[in-house]
Amino acid sequence: MLEVDCPCVTPEVVLKASGHVDKFTDLMVKDEKTGTCYRADHLLKDHCKDKLEKDLAMSADKAAEFKHILAVLDDLSAEELGAKIKEYGIVAPDTKNPLSDPYPFNLMFQTSIGPSGVSPGYMRPETAQGIFVNFKDLYYYNGNKLPFAAAQIGQAFRNEISPRQGLLRVREFTLAEIEHFVDPDDKSHPKYSEVEKLEFLMFPRDLQMSGQSAKRLCLGEAVSKGIVNNQTLAYFIGRVYLFLTRLGIDEERLRFRQHLPNEMAHYAADCWDAEIESSYGWIECVGIADRSAYDLRAHTDKSGVALVAQEKFAEPKEVEKLVITPIKKELGLAFKGNQKMVVEALEAMSEKEAMDMKSVLETKGEVEFEVCTLEKTVTITKKMVTISKEKKKEHQRVFTPSVIEPSFGIGRIIYCLYEHSFYMRPSKAGDEQLNVFRFPPLVAPIKCTVFPLVQNAQYEQVAKNISRSLTAAGISNKKDITGTSIGKRYARTDELGVPFAVTVDSTSSVTIRERDSKDQIRVSIDEVAAVVKEVSEGRATWADILKKYPAHTSASADE
Amino acid sequence: MLEVDCPCVTPEVVLKASGHVDKFTDLMVKDEKTGTCYRADHLLKDHCKDKLEKDLAMSADKAAEFKHILAVLDDLSAEELGAKIKEYGIVAPDTKNPLSDPYPFNLMFQTSIGPSGVSPGYMRPETAQGIFVNFKDLYYYNGNKLPFAAAQIGQAFRNEISPRQGLLRVREFTLAEIEHFVDPDDKSHPKYSEVEKLEFLMFPRDLQMSGQSAKRLCLGEAVSKGIVNNQTLAYFIGRVYLFLTRLGIDEERLRFRQHLPNEMAHYAADCWDAEIESSYGWIECVGIADRSAYDLRAHTDKSGVALVAQEKFAEPKEVEKLVITPIKKELGLAFKGNQKMVVEALEAMSEKEAMDMKSVLETKGEVEFEVCTLEKTVTITKKMVTISKEKKKEHQRVFTPSVIEPSFGIGRIIYCLYEHSFYMRPSKAGDEQLNVFRFPPLVAPIKCTVFPLVQNAQYEQVAKNISRSLTAAGISNKKDITGTSIGKRYARTDELGVPFAVTVDSTSSVTIRERDSKDQIRVSIDEVAAVVKEVSEGRATWADILKKYPAHTSASADE
Repeated sequence: MLEVDCPCVTPEVVLKASGHVDKFTDLMVKDEKTGTCYRADHLLKDHCKDKLEKDLAMSADKAAEFKHILAVLDDLSAEELGAKIKEYGIVAPDTKNPLSDPYPFNLMFQTSIGPSGVSPGYMRPETAQGIFVNFKDLYYYNGNKLPFAAAQIGQAFRNEISPRQGLLRVREFTLAEIEHFVDPDDKSHPKYSEVEKLEFLMFPRDLQMSGQSAKRLCLGEAVSKGIVNNQTLAYFIGRVYLFLTRLGIDEERLRFRQHLPNEMAHYAADCWDAEIESSYGWIECVGIADRSAYDLRAHTDKSGVALVAQEKFAEPKEVEKLVITPIKKELGLAFKGNQKMVVEALEAMSEKEAMDMKSVLETKGEVEFEVCTLEKTVTITKKMVTISKEKKKEHQRVFTPSVIEPSFGIGRIIYCLYEHSFYMRPSKAGDEQLNVFRFPPLVAPIKCTVFPLVQNAQYEQVAKNISRSLTAAGISNKKDITGTSIGKRYARTDELGVPFAVTVDSTSSVTIRERDSKDQIRVSIDEVAAVVKEVSEGRATWADILKKYPAHTSASADE
Repeated sequence: MLEVDCPCVTPEVVLKASGHVDKFTDLMVKDEKTGTCYRADHLLKDHCKDKLEKDLAMSADKAAEFKHILAVLDDLSAEELGAKIKEYGIVAPDTKNPLSDPYPFNLMFQTSIGPSGVSPGYMRPETAQGIFVNFKDLYYYNGNKLPFAAAQIGQAFRNEISPRQGLLRVREFTLAEIEHFVDPDDKSHPKYSEVEKLEFLMFPRDLQMSGQSAKRLCLGEAVSKGIVNNQTLAYFIGRVYLFLTRLGIDEERLRFRQHLPNEMAHYAADCWDAEIESSYGWIECVGIADRSAYDLRAHTDKSGVALVAQEKFAEPKEVEKLVITPIKKELGLAFKGNQKMVVEALEAMSEKEAMDMKSVLETKGEVEFEVCTLEKTVTITKKMVTISKEKKKEHQRVFTPSVIEPSFGIGRIIYCLYEHSFYMRPSKAGDEQLNVFRFPPLVAPIKCTVFPLVQNAQYEQVAKNISRSLTAAGISNKKDITGTSIGKRYARTDELGVPFAVTVDSTSSVTIRERDSKDQIRVSIDEVAAVVKEVSEGRATWADILKKYPAHTSASADE
C-alpha cells in the first residue's frame, strides 16, 4: 500500500470536479431576529422525537406521521423541510423566534490562496481527493499494475452548522483513508481467503427495512449470497473488523450496517458502515464504500487528463468497433453554419443510437435526429452519414478503475475505545471504586510503570536502570518514585490504562503485575525489558508469561 | 516530553493575543495594471544583486550603497522600501508596469468558523500557539513541575505572496515544534553534560558582523564564554546537531547561525538557526530560540487566565510586599461616578509609581495622578490612599516560565537530505552513471529488497518467505521478481536508496549486499530477517556484520 501526504488547502477546481463545491451542503435555518443558525433536519428530528416521547394522547395516525418523517429525514428537500417546519410551528429553540426558510450551507471552510484574492481554496473535507488527483503518478509508481491501494492519514475539515455529541462531531478531525483501485470487471481480492470465515454482527439492508436487528453472519456467505457486493469490499470489511476488535472494541457492540438506497451516493455500488455502540448510541466510525469509477471519471472530465488503467492482452483480441463517418460535404450543403454541431452530435451517438439510426436509414432513407446544441430536430438522410461496425485487433483494454474506500474516523474510534475500555472495580478496602482502562498492551500509550516498593536509594537506582532498559527497547514507560503507598500507585497506573507495573522489592529480581488480573510474577532484573517487550508487542500473551515465570503473591500489595 | 495534537483552524482571539493578526505580515507591491503581487523586499533585493553582478562600471560609492541595502533589507519600513523602489525606478518584472506603494499583507490563511460569519479564524502559521494556550493542562499533567516540554508535529500554513525556491518555501508545510518550559532563573539542563563536548560549525553574531565565516567550536565553551545564552538552549542546539547528522546531513554543510539583533524578535533572549547548505545556498531548517516568557504572558493578558508556575519554598521566605489601599469613601466623595476607575488605576500602580506617590503625598499632601481610562489627570490627597510596604511570609514563588523552542521545518530537512544523500557512480560497463541515495538504514523508507537471482519457482518461493519474515519483523521491504538482470535490479534498488539487497541463489543460504560498498555476505535463510533488522535499526553497523558472516564474491553480479 502506498502512503501519500497531500495538502489540506485545496484549490477550488479540484473540489468543483469532485462535486463538493456544489453539493457538500447541509440545510440551515436562521433565527430571524438573532441570526443564530440551526440545522433544519435537526430541528425537525428533535420536534418529532419530542412529540413521540411526551405527547401520550397522540393519535396513531399522528404517531405514524412523525415516525415516517424520522425515517425519510435524509431525503427531504429544502422545500419539504421548510413546509414541515411551518406546519408544526417549529421556532428557534433558544429564543422562540420565527425561523427563516431552509437554505443550503456549504460545509467546507473557504479561504483564498495567494495574495491576489482571485484563487479561492477550501480546507479539504476528506483526504480522498488528494489521492484521486495523484492517481497517474501512483499507478506509475506501482508499475502500471492493478490492483493497488494508496493510503493517507491527516486532518479533514467540515464547518458544521451546530456541532453536537461532544467529541464525535467536530469541525476538524483526523481521517485515515485507503483508496484501493481495482479492475471493475474483477473485484476479487488475493487475500480474501484470510477473512472469508470471519463471523460478526452484520446489519444488511433487508434486515433494516423489515425492522429486525443486526445478526451474526459469516462474511464469506454474505458475499456468496450477494449481500456484500464483492470480494474486495468484503476483504476490507473483514480487516476493519479485525482492526477494531484488536484495538479493544467490544465485538458485541460493533456492527456493520449496510447503507439503505436513500443514504448511498448515486454512483456507489455498495456501502457498509462499521458502527460502534457508545453512550451516544450507534456511531458510524468507519465507512467502507465501493465508489465505482465516479471520482476518477469526474477528475478526468474536469482536467482533461485521462485517469485510466490499461490491461495488456496476452494476445491481441479481435473486437467489433462502431464507426460513424459523417459525410461533411452533404451535411454542409444541408445545414450550412450548423454543420459542425450536427457532425459532433452524430459522432457522439451511443452504439445503440447509431445502430437504430442505421436501421431506420436503411429502411426509410431518412430519420429525425435531435441536436441538443441546436435545441432542435433535423432530418438526416442516407447520404449524410455512414454507420458500420468494423473488426479491429486490440492489444490492450483501457478502462477507468473502480475504487473501494475504507475511511476511518480516528477520533471517533478512539472515543469509543475509551468507553469500551473503561471499568470500575472495588478497592480492597471496599470503600471506593477504582477506575481502570483495560487498553490492550499494543494500544496502551504507556506500556509499563516502574516503581520501588519503598523509598530507598538502592531500589530507586534499580528502578532507574530498568526504566532505561525499557526505553532502549522502545517500550514507553513511566517511573513513580513518590512515597505513596504501593496500592495507590497501582491504582494510579490502572487509571492510566498501563498494562504492566514493575515493582522493585530487591536488587536481583522484581515483580511484574498485570493490570486486569492483578497477577504478579517474579523476574530477574536482566530479563524485565525483554519480557515486557514481548508481551507489549503482542508476541506473547500474559497467559504465556504466567507459565514461564514463578507467581509472586503478596499479602499487602494490591488494593 | 508530552505530545499534543491541536487543531489547525484557530480562532482569531488566540492569534490576536500572540501578535500574528497584527504583525505576521510581509510588505507587498502590486503591478498597477495587472494586479499581480510581489514581495517588495524581493524586488529590491533582486535589483541590488543584479546591479552588483552586471554593472561593472559602477562607482565604489554606488556599490557600497547596494551592499548596505542588502544588509539592512529586513529592517526597512514600508516607506523606506517604497522610496528605494521609486528611486531606482523598479517596475513589475513581467510587464514593466509601474508598482503600487508597499503595504502589509497578512500571511495567514483566513477563514470563518461556523455558519454565522461572525467568528473569524485562521489556519495556524505555527504549531506553538496550541501548546501555549494548553499550558495549564500540560503543567498539571506533569505534576506541576518544571522543567518540562511539550511537542507537536503537524501542518502549518503561510499564504506566501510569491513562493520561490521550489520545495523550500511552500504555503503548507509540516512543522515539528518542541516548547520546553523552564524557570527563567534557572536555565540549566539535566542532560547538558551529554552534549557539552560536541564540536561543530557555529556562526556566532560577532563572526558574522566582522565578515568572517563559520568556525568549528566546542558547544560547552560557547556556553561558558556567553556566546550561547544558556545551557538549555545549548542542549537543544547539540541535540539538533546529533539529529541532523544521524539523518545523513553532511556535517561540513551544516552550521548553527546566531540571529543578528535586527533579525530577532524583541522579546527573544537568543536564537540560533541550523542552516544546511544546498544548491539554493544556506537554508534555515531548524530554529532554536529562547522566546523568554513572551508567549505565556501575551495569552495571560488577553485571556485573563494566569499561565504561571509555582515554586514551593522548602521554608517560608520573608518578603517585602507593596500594599496599596484606596480609601473608597474619600474617593467616592471626590470623584463620584468615576470612583471605580480611579480605584483601579491606583491599584494598578507599579512599585516605583506607588513609592513615588507615597513620598510626594508625605511631603506635599497631594499629587497629580493620570487616570488613563478617564483620559485626564486628577488630584489625589493623603486621605484618599494609603501606601505601605509590609513584610510577609511567602510559601511559594509564582512566575511565568520561559520557553525554549526548537522548531523543525520537516520538508526542508528532507529536501536537504535528498541533496546530501545523492551521488552518482560509474556503471560496470562504464558507459553510464548510476544514481544512488546513500540514506542511512535508519532513515531509508525501504530497508531491504529481496530478489531471486534467476527466475525459478523455488527461488521465488524462498524470496516470498524471506519477504514475509522481514515484514513480520517490522522491516519495510520490496520484492523484485522481474526477469531483469541482477545488475539492473541492484541499480534500481540503489536509486531508491534501499540499503540492503537480499539475493536468493540457493534454497539454504542467500547473499545480503550493502548499497554503498557493494560488499556481499552469505547468510542462512533463517537468519536473514534478524541480521537485516539489527543493522536497519542501528543496533549493529555493516562493519560488525561483515566480521560475523562470510563474504560472498561474485564475478558477474554487480554493475
